[in-house]
Amino acid sequence: MKSYLENINKAFESRARLGIMSVLMVDERVDFNTLKDTLQLTDGNLASHLRALEEAEYLRVEKQFVGRKPNTTYHATDLGREAFKNHLDALEQLILSNRKDN
Amino acid sequence: MKSYLENINKAFESRARLGIMSVLMVDERVDFNTLKDTLQLTDGNLASHLRALEEAEYLRVEKQFVGRKPNTTYHATDLGREAFKNHLDALEQLILSNRKDN
Repeated sequence: MKSYLENINKAFESRARLGIMSVLMVDERVDFNTLKDTLQLTDGNLASHLRALEEAEYLRVEKQFVGRKPNTTYHATDLGREAFKNHLDALEQLILSNRKDN
Repeated sequence: MKSYLENINKAFESRARLGIMSVLMVDERVDFNTLKDTLQLTDGNLASHLRALEEAEYLRVEKQFVGRKPNTTYHATDLGREAFKNHLDALEQLILSNRKDN
C-alpha cells in the first residue's frame, strides 16, 4: 500500500470527526452545543463520534458546574493533536500524489 | 457548517475508497487483483467498496474475456473523477484552514 494511505487514520475518516477535531484544534475547550451547532449534527450522532474519539484518547471530556448548571466540555489531548496533524499530512500527500499524476 | 466540510463527500470517506479512486484516476482500467494488491484489502472488503462506488456511478465495471479467462476491470466515470477532485479540494481547504488557525 502507498505509504500515505497507511498514514490515513481510520479514527478521523468521517466528516463529523474531521469537523470535531478541526474545531478542537482551534478552541481549547468546546461544549456539546457549540460542536452540535457548528457541525450541524444530531445529538446522538455527535455523541457517538465524541465517544469514539474519547476511547481513542484523542479528546478528553470534562464535566463541571457553571452555577447550578452542569457544563460538559471537550478538548483535544496532545495525542489527539499529534494524530490529527499526521492524518492531515497523509491527506496532503494523497492530494499531491493525485495532482502530480493527472 | 463550514463550507469545506459540506463538500467532503461521504462516498469517499474511507481509506479504501480514497485508495481505489486514487488508483483509478491514474490508470484508465484496473482489474480486481491489481486493486487488491495495491490497496492490501481482502476480497470482500474491496468488493463492497467497489460496489458502493459503482452504485454512486463513480466507477463502472466491465466484464470481458481474455482468451477463455473472464477479466473484470474497473474505471472511473467522468462523474466520479469530478466528484473525487471536488472531494480532494474540500480536504485541501480543511488542511489549509487547520494550518492557518494553529
